[in-house]
Amino acid sequence: MARLGASAPVASYTRRNIPAYQVLDDAALLAIEAQADWILDRIGIEFRGDDVALDFFREAGARVDGQRVTFEPGHARSLCSTAPEQFTLYARNPEKNVQLGGDHVVLMPGYGSPFVSDLDRGRRYATLEDFQNFVKLTYATHWLHHSGGTVVEPTDVPVNKRYLDMVFSHLTLSDKPFMGGVTSPDRARDSITMARLVFGPEFMYQNAVIQGNINVNSPLIYDDTMSGALRVYAEAGQCVCVSPAIFSGAMGPLSPAAVAAQTLAEGMVGIALAQLVKPGCPVVFGSFHSTMNLKSGALTFGSPEANLATMVLSQLGHRLGVPVRSGGGHISASNAADGQAMQDSVGAMWATLLSGAHQVWHAAGWLEGGLVMSYEKFIMDLDHCGAMMTLLQGFEATEEAFGRDAYLETGPGENFLSTAHTLRHFATANFQPDIPEGGPFETWSENGSLRADQRATAQWKTMLSAYEPPALEDSIKTALSDFVTERKTAMKDEWY
Amino acid sequence: MARLGASAPVASYTRRNIPAYQVLDDAALLAIEAQADWILDRIGIEFRGDDVALDFFREAGARVDGQRVTFEPGHARSLCSTAPEQFTLYARNPEKNVQLGGDHVVLMPGYGSPFVSDLDRGRRYATLEDFQNFVKLTYATHWLHHSGGTVVEPTDVPVNKRYLDMVFSHLTLSDKPFMGGVTSPDRARDSITMARLVFGPEFMYQNAVIQGNINVNSPLIYDDTMSGALRVYAEAGQCVCVSPAIFSGAMGPLSPAAVAAQTLAEGMVGIALAQLVKPGCPVVFGSFHSTMNLKSGALTFGSPEANLATMVLSQLGHRLGVPVRSGGGHISASNAADGQAMQDSVGAMWATLLSGAHQVWHAAGWLEGGLVMSYEKFIMDLDHCGAMMTLLQGFEATEEAFGRDAYLETGPGENFLSTAHTLRHFATANFQPDIPEGGPFETWSENGSLRADQRATAQWKTMLSAYEPPALEDSIKTALSDFVTERKTAMKDEWY
Repeated sequence: MARLGASAPVASYTRRNIPAYQVLDDAALLAIEAQADWILDRIGIEFRGDDVALDFFREAGARVDGQRVTFEPGHARSLCSTAPEQFTLYARNPEKNVQLGGDHVVLMPGYGSPFVSDLDRGRRYATLEDFQNFVKLTYATHWLHHSGGTVVEPTDVPVNKRYLDMVFSHLTLSDKPFMGGVTSPDRARDSITMARLVFGPEFMYQNAVIQGNINVNSPLIYDDTMSGALRVYAEAGQCVCVSPAIFSGAMGPLSPAAVAAQTLAEGMVGIALAQLVKPGCPVVFGSFHSTMNLKSGALTFGSPEANLATMVLSQLGHRLGVPVRSGGGHISASNAADGQAMQDSVGAMWATLLSGAHQVWHAAGWLEGGLVMSYEKFIMDLDHCGAMMTLLQGFEATEEAFGRDAYLETGPGENFLSTAHTLRHFATANFQPDIPEGGPFETWSENGSLRADQRATAQWKTMLSAYEPPALEDSIKTALSDFVTERKTAMKDEWY
Repeated sequence: MARLGASAPVASYTRRNIPAYQVLDDAALLAIEAQADWILDRIGIEFRGDDVALDFFREAGARVDGQRVTFEPGHARSLCSTAPEQFTLYARNPEKNVQLGGDHVVLMPGYGSPFVSDLDRGRRYATLEDFQNFVKLTYATHWLHHSGGTVVEPTDVPVNKRYLDMVFSHLTLSDKPFMGGVTSPDRARDSITMARLVFGPEFMYQNAVIQGNINVNSPLIYDDTMSGALRVYAEAGQCVCVSPAIFSGAMGPLSPAAVAAQTLAEGMVGIALAQLVKPGCPVVFGSFHSTMNLKSGALTFGSPEANLATMVLSQLGHRLGVPVRSGGGHISASNAADGQAMQDSVGAMWATLLSGAHQVWHAAGWLEGGLVMSYEKFIMDLDHCGAMMTLLQGFEATEEAFGRDAYLETGPGENFLSTAHTLRHFATANFQPDIPEGGPFETWSENGSLRADQRATAQWKTMLSAYEPPALEDSIKTALSDFVTERKTAMKDEWY
């Protein structure tokens, strides 16, 4: 049986086949939408240092007072109406194009960690080599559909040049969709220029091949770095993901309802700006929210309050009619890839995926509230990505699934293992994790009583040593490399 | 802030306030129900060695051929129709009565482990002291509503006398509802007799105060031990939980659809027998199902296939109109309270609770596929029980939750921590786990880099040392004690 099972093809899923969970009813959703409108009408959003953005909103009929923009109820939502409900984000390998929206699910690795850890070398600052390792690992797994963005911070590269090495790595070491620089309009522009070297300007005039993640400076502020980068991506018709960042009680009031309403308010305004810059620009309604331990002030992840906000934000995004990037994913405040890490992560991922989110940041590797990408946690999370994508397929209640022939072949008290029905299905029936199981207690003890994180170490090493880069024309690779060299030469190193 | 937070009352929840998730549509549910009918019509169920049960079914119009009973489609379901949709399971402390059915949720500890483990003493055979410890810990937490049954096997007591010590412990060390012996009709009868010493025969004539868990010998067999015990509980009008036990591919065909249909078929027949013995007898539609690693043959828990079956079994139970005991809970095949343990457990618990199960076995402590109750895992699971019960409350989208006054008090870019709204709510806003958080990496490292399971050790020790038994009249305690002594004296020790 083992050999038959081992040779079975591994399924790779990209969509959901079970309904999205509706945690709130229409009346509650309408109340949250009305609260978002109240925020935009009575308080408003500030665009700091971006007169172009202010002009766009003034011309669209919003009220602009200094840097503050306020909206009549319903106005911001109506400005979002030109955004597509679903679109393709193109990969340089067409087989890896992803759909954002509808019943599609796009998982990506963690984003933004300054540290990495593994059980051999411990916790340390992330380097470009670590960044490239995680791009390779993401390329190697079929459970992640997207290469991510700042997967980890390559802290050995000057701050102002990192985006060049990151975009170069995404485009050469992987062939999955990716995200570009957003930490200044220039970096956004260079990222798009590099994508054009691969995809061609004509193709990109019509299609999105790169995403920019625009973090809102919650509460209720867009600074010119972020709104400037947003406008660069939107002008180029590339995908803008708008992600308010709210820890309840700090950047917004202390309740899931308030977090949801404020996220919607802030998100709609960013999406509206993208639509004003370029109507029809592909956007994603994102969020990054969580809770705090209100005694210690520590950030917490996977809490019931955060998971509730995650679930309702999927509903609100569906009603807004744009793809949703969830504030969930495999997130945790834990310092180790232990029971707490998976408790936080698994709960957050259930909230994320059952509620119908379309794109999931931080689906693998996250620890310490995002300070660390853990090589072992990455592998553990991949197994759970696979389990959840399998769960999202649901199951069929068909004659073949019911196995009537097996009952006729056996009978009460008899074993089904050797029935023809079991033999027909066992090779593909159950999801198989990649981390080897511990086995019975005695075997497990003899083998050193290894926890799941310890058993995961071999897997990332195997994946890295088996890695081979996807094909890329030499001329394109040279052009990318030349561009990076040229831009790096033109800038002094900056380390802050 | 810390002191205010520390003095806040801790909520204890017993019901859900968010909708049950519907993974399958009506057409698929009808197909599964039709398959259950097909099994009962074409294959049937064997009652081995229980002529009384066979007579009940014959008189009810089922077809009895030797020990095999088959049913016309719809007949078994119609025999279940006298079972109550919701009922009270009484505790000796009326404040701890539980409702089974409706929007109520009843969580209980693990059941049946022959081993225990803790980080100080390692893994070892469970003793009566361990059993009593887990009854005390269950009494001490407000996240478990029910004392359970064979929480662990007290292996230092003769097999044929364990039930006496277990029922005595439940009735004296706790005041929550509990389960009695089922491993023979005599043991079931004695368990009920002991309950009568506490609750009085008149009260028990009208009301359920004890549960018996009737495991089906899946596939499709009830042996006389189990059907005999079932009849004893039913005759006394006490609660019968019928739990088919199916590992897909072994005790039934290899698919979630088949597991669901067979569980329904086996469950309906047990419930029907309880109704034939005593119409209106309170019952619970239970299940215990999971998957196997089909390469290694090892049992697996929290798999996507098992979680899908768990979710649809809640739907099928709701349609049958009886309370549902979920096959989920905090279950895992892991040998340690590590990341795998919580990954398996948390996923299974989401499937269990989001789908609307009413009673949950194994909500705390389970490891190694049920071979072990872990003191540390018990504490970790309690925290997740609390988180899930909090999640099940949902949230309100009200003016007060939206915190408009906080926006008027602050503004864009300002912190909400010191607003009047935050001060009004921070003491009760967020669920607080009992396991202390690790803190920032530097602090955590200085404190020994303790994983969640290691930080949980202090908690169970604190709970045990703070334990004080609930009040019980001396005369009742003496009567119970005398009964145990009398019964033990009348029997020789049996160790198998």
